[in-house]
Amino acid sequence: MPAEPSVPESDKRVVILNPHPRKISEIFTDEDLERLHQMARVVWAKDEPIPPEELASVREQAYAVIMARWHNFSIAEFPALRAILEVSGRHPSPSLLDYETCFARGIRVLSCAPAFGPMVAEMALGMALAASRQIVAGHVGFLDGSERYLHEGNLDTFTLYDKPVGLIGFGGLARALRPLLAPFRCSIQVYDPWVAPTYLRDQGVMPLSLEELLVTSRVIFVLAIPSVENKSLLDRELLKLIRADAVLVLMSRAHVVDFDALTEMLYAGRFRAAIDVFPEEPLPPDHPIRHAPGVVLSAHRAGSVGPELRRIGHLVVNDLEAMLAGLPPLEMQGAQPEIVRRLP
Amino acid sequence: MPAEPSVPESDKRVVILNPHPRKISEIFTDEDLERLHQMARVVWAKDEPIPPEELASVREQAYAVIMARWHNFSIAEFPALRAILEVSGRHPSPSLLDYETCFARGIRVLSCAPAFGPMVAEMALGMALAASRQIVAGHVGFLDGSERYLHEGNLDTFTLYDKPVGLIGFGGLARALRPLLAPFRCSIQVYDPWVAPTYLRDQGVMPLSLEELLVTSRVIFVLAIPSVENKSLLDRELLKLIRADAVLVLMSRAHVVDFDALTEMLYAGRFRAAIDVFPEEPLPPDHPIRHAPGVVLSAHRAGSVGPELRRIGHLVVNDLEAMLAGLPPLEMQGAQPEIVRRLP
Amino acid sequence: MPAEPSVPESDKRVVILNPHPRKISEIFTDEDLERLHQMARVVWAKDEPIPPEELASVREQAYAVIMARWHNFSIAEFPALRAILEVSGRHPSPSLLDYETCFARGIRVLSCAPAFGPMVAEMALGMALAASRQIVAGHVGFLDGSERYLHEGNLDTFTLYDKPVGLIGFGGLARALRPLLAPFRCSIQVYDPWVAPTYLRDQGVMPLSLEELLVTSRVIFVLAIPSVENKSLLDRELLKLIRADAVLVLMSRAHVVDFDALTEMLYAGRFRAAIDVFPEEPLPPDHPIRHAPGVVLSAHRAGSVGPELRRIGHLVVNDLEAMLAGLPPLEMQGAQPEIVRRLP
Amino acid sequence: MPAEPSVPESDKRVVILNPHPRKISEIFTDEDLERLHQMARVVWAKDEPIPPEELASVREQAYAVIMARWHNFSIAEFPALRAILEVSGRHPSPSLLDYETCFARGIRVLSCAPAFGPMVAEMALGMALAASRQIVAGHVGFLDGSERYLHEGNLDTFTLYDKPVGLIGFGGLARALRPLLAPFRCSIQVYDPWVAPTYLRDQGVMPLSLEELLVTSRVIFVLAIPSVENKSLLDRELLKLIRADAVLVLMSRAHVVDFDALTEMLYAGRFRAAIDVFPEEPLPPDHPIRHAPGVVLSAHRAGSVGPELRRIGHLVVNDLEAMLAGLPPLEMQGAQPEIVRRLP
Repeated sequence: MPAEPSVPESDKRVVILNPHPRKISEIFTDEDLERLHQMARVVWAKDEPIPPEELASVREQAYAVIMARWHNFSIAEFPALRAILEVSGRHPSPSLLDYETCFARGIRVLSCAPAFGPMVAEMALGMALAASRQIVAGHVGFLDGSERYLHEGNLDTFTLYDKPVGLIGFGGLARALRPLLAPFRCSIQVYDPWVAPTYLRDQGVMPLSLEELLVTSRVIFVLAIPSVENKSLLDRELLKLIRADAVLVLMSRAHVVDFDALTEMLYAGRFRAAIDVFPEEPLPPDHPIRHAPGVVLSAHRAGSVGPELRRIGHLVVNDLEAMLAGLPPLEMQGAQPEIVRRLP
Repeated sequence: MPAEPSVPESDKRVVILNPHPRKISEIFTDEDLERLHQMARVVWAKDEPIPPEELASVREQAYAVIMARWHNFSIAEFPALRAILEVSGRHPSPSLLDYETCFARGIRVLSCAPAFGPMVAEMALGMALAASRQIVAGHVGFLDGSERYLHEGNLDTFTLYDKPVGLIGFGGLARALRPLLAPFRCSIQVYDPWVAPTYLRDQGVMPLSLEELLVTSRVIFVLAIPSVENKSLLDRELLKLIRADAVLVLMSRAHVVDFDALTEMLYAGRFRAAIDVFPEEPLPPDHPIRHAPGVVLSAHRAGSVGPELRRIGHLVVNDLEAMLAGLPPLEMQGAQPEIVRRLP
Repeated sequence: MPAEPSVPESDKRVVILNPHPRKISEIFTDEDLERLHQMARVVWAKDEPIPPEELASVREQAYAVIMARWHNFSIAEFPALRAILEVSGRHPSPSLLDYETCFARGIRVLSCAPAFGPMVAEMALGMALAASRQIVAGHVGFLDGSERYLHEGNLDTFTLYDKPVGLIGFGGLARALRPLLAPFRCSIQVYDPWVAPTYLRDQGVMPLSLEELLVTSRVIFVLAIPSVENKSLLDRELLKLIRADAVLVLMSRAHVVDFDALTEMLYAGRFRAAIDVFPEEPLPPDHPIRHAPGVVLSAHRAGSVGPELRRIGHLVVNDLEAMLAGLPPLEMQGAQPEIVRRLP
Repeated sequence: MPAEPSVPESDKRVVILNPHPRKISEIFTDEDLERLHQMARVVWAKDEPIPPEELASVREQAYAVIMARWHNFSIAEFPALRAILEVSGRHPSPSLLDYETCFARGIRVLSCAPAFGPMVAEMALGMALAASRQIVAGHVGFLDGSERYLHEGNLDTFTLYDKPVGLIGFGGLARALRPLLAPFRCSIQVYDPWVAPTYLRDQGVMPLSLEELLVTSRVIFVLAIPSVENKSLLDRELLKLIRADAVLVLMSRAHVVDFDALTEMLYAGRFRAAIDVFPEEPLPPDHPIRHAPGVVLSAHRAGSVGPELRRIGHLVVNDLEAMLAGLPPLEMQGAQPEIVRRLP
């Protein structure tokens, strides 16, 4: 089924490989890169951005473009295009890519987001446990000799077993997180305005309003991708609803939270939090959240584990292989009209 | 099937409840305590240790004793005894309890160890992730502004997915940990000299020599209970076998590790570790491991989460209920002759 | 998120409900039908086929059509159409529906096939066990007193535990069957020319050539939907490769097997089979397969369990609800260009 | 850890291997038999019963006896005995074996019952599906051309998905059956007077009275081993409680059911049944249940699948290996005082 290795070079489809600012060796194993070269005529394939003149010379034949960022190129200038495969982790903004034309022409716009699901889900669980079991705070105590043993060190800890857990956003991250939570028998409650409640019930989770979710959940995972609709979704009033014994785990984007309000509430000891993403990165050296009580901080590290990034290239090559064999791509995330029009 | 509530008090069996140094409210919910009083004539039931004269007055009628420590009482002085239910987490030492007489008389010696499995397993996973994903080190970086973002912060991290994981000890903790590891698809390799290799294979894990396990595992969980055989089992020579990219997670007892060698090797950057138990607790203020690189420290906090401790009383009352109804106890861990004779 | 009940009737979208030859009460619960009427202006909604003049009067406004068969209507005559939701179980033939126009216009063509997965998978497992454990043959023995007890009745039986199982086709049926096989720890080997081998490996199954699959599998499930490519795929030569101790379970369509060759081989005692679908239904009264040894026959009954058929309507209403709220449909199976062009 | 192969023959423990009426090759693989000979001095080891004089000559040295039936030997005549390993599937009757002395002397009385769990559970599921999906009745229809297609053939069928399932008996068979039922998401309700309700709840099943279980369950699995207490437990009055749309699956022993009442009720069409065990085997040729409507009959074939019986020898050798290494046996089922005294 894969493109035969014996296909003459001249008969191979043209694939532009322009992953900048990602590096090729960062996202492809040697084996997957070799497979890619076997199945297609790979153009550019360098870590620097493709120069405009280089692009101009191949775009008419390009069957697929593998890229991290779509620079507002006109789709009309790619008459043979069948697939755009992005390697950054998000579908391009509709302000840069003309999705309507892509859909009308049957061009697949594929995101590598699924490659990130497992490693981000693992980090979300690890950060949740670091906060709920006070693993970080407990360790820091050892640095100045203030650690407290046994029950004295567990006055505010709790286990995940049988606890209600809230997921804000039920996309790929949620799907990767659910199996990790399953052995803890948590009841999963979900807020996601992009998914019908009946579907959520069919998936074995409980659809809730955002208010109800915040009031009842013991751990709240913020997994929603940024959209034009969810800027500062978790504002001060909503943050106030969170239980005093809860942990807020912010994984997707700081975009969806009023970060100043969150910082203040952590200082007030209102609840605990684990945070991987910030409104500004690097975080300013004097940002007060650095020393907020009850917080676990991570420097946007959930989705950047070296060896796992090669999963991106694996999905790209697998889906190109399928398409070149006349089959649908099954691994990357295809753009959905209803969703991409809501992207910022 | 449970003892009828209407049993006259005088017909009820005598159960001595003497959990000191545990407190009754720490290990029993009100509901389970009420069930206990319904099914038996409960004697003492105070947080202080039972005075010798008090004990002397009831021991001849005692059907069961619920206690944290067995003080070298003579079993012969308890002619009606059918069960010893311990609430500390370990079977009594054979130097204090005459197990042979218990076995010959059919007295059940039951340990509440199963109550600890889930919470310790969760902590083991949390500490493993805190080390493998550098959640603790990453957070500490924020305190002085040295945090590194994205790939720069992930130079030494790895995920658990599909990694070989070694378990030293395949008792109750290992059984509680396995479901938490299952979604990561780790291959599980086990060293446990108390369990036959054929049995391990039947359980879907790979029996290995300790040397092989140390050489190959990416995460090594030390879960073995202390025995007369395993003092400093992980000595300097064995610790040298651990991979440079591995994490050693010490959960059960410091007894099984040469702690000085471990500390030195962490300073030498040989591997990483997460440690919940220490040779001396509290750890001396100047112990070098407090500042060892690549370590996550926890003050013996894995098995002391408040609400979870009520699980102990639940198991005790359930098993007493079963025994009083003429049924075998199914929840606590019965003493096995081959094992208890190896306990220190 | 769902369409508000208070939407005035005149503002609601028009949905043509024409499920003939299915009956409305067969595929919708009262509750789902009520939801449908709440969210849309439902036209026709009778068990008889919609008359042409009736259709002509509403097709210009139709937002969606719910139907069992697409009668070669011109898509151009449905200018407002956004969705075709079929309730028979298969996407319409490309000879009857102009998919290219649908794709270009962004019209979703949705199949209710996922509603059938669980009940067909259960029947596939039940029929496999009926053959492997000789449940049918064992019962028939009782009718004339020839039953054989204990080992004598188990000379040719086997269990599924740890056996290699082959799946021909890795679509929705295979996905519904996998969890049912999981507790038997079968190794799953797959032949599906529509799915890339790398994807199959990522799903934890082993891609094999059809020949290898037939030679090695102990149970072979034929789950492939009919296509222009797979007519009599399992021909006499391939059937000869099947192990003598294997069971062939034919669930999807007789189309994919040389049925005469299969019948002969069963008479020759070459292997055993369980068959739910036939080249001609009803099967001719004198068809020899009725009395073939080692066969379990079922009259196309895997996908027609009454209460389960209401799942069709549930998926239809859920996906319409999502689309009317501006969200992507998540429950039914969307047409893929690469696949529909291969349909007969 | 296993007994070293180099142990001189004279130092090996004596194990009497007397499995009659089972045959050695029926229950041991060559490999396991070889392991047994390596680790012990195996005496007798023939398929015929050991002659009394032969037994008399070795019983004083016997460390273990592997046997199918215990013939009322006096335990006192086996002064070195440490283990009785039975290979029939049930612990010996307390009328034949002096359990009290075994317990007092620490002699393990081990049953191979766990070897049967998986194959019996598979058959129980297969027979349940054969009845619920009418796989047997549907096949029989083909024999005389009366088969009915599609919905017409599914007027009385149902799937297991999400249905309430009742288990009468929560021992090893129930534990082997639960994982097979798990993917069907059945709610599991249990009646077992030998297990405390609190324990059942902890196991995630719902303890019910027998009456409630019969009234509510859609499939009822009878899995209880015979005891002095449960003769004809399911009498006519209780059988009347079963739902008209339910299937009764009788797997363990006919002992627990009023078989005449059951036969009558099947003729009256009160419910359906699948039956593997009979009050008299072979069943009399004129027994009316042979032609009862809605029944699936199997000739005590659930636990006699040839290759699976070697699991018995595997467990026996594994547990002997463990015991000879000074470790507790983990695979076979140890006799519990509270249970064995209830055996018939």
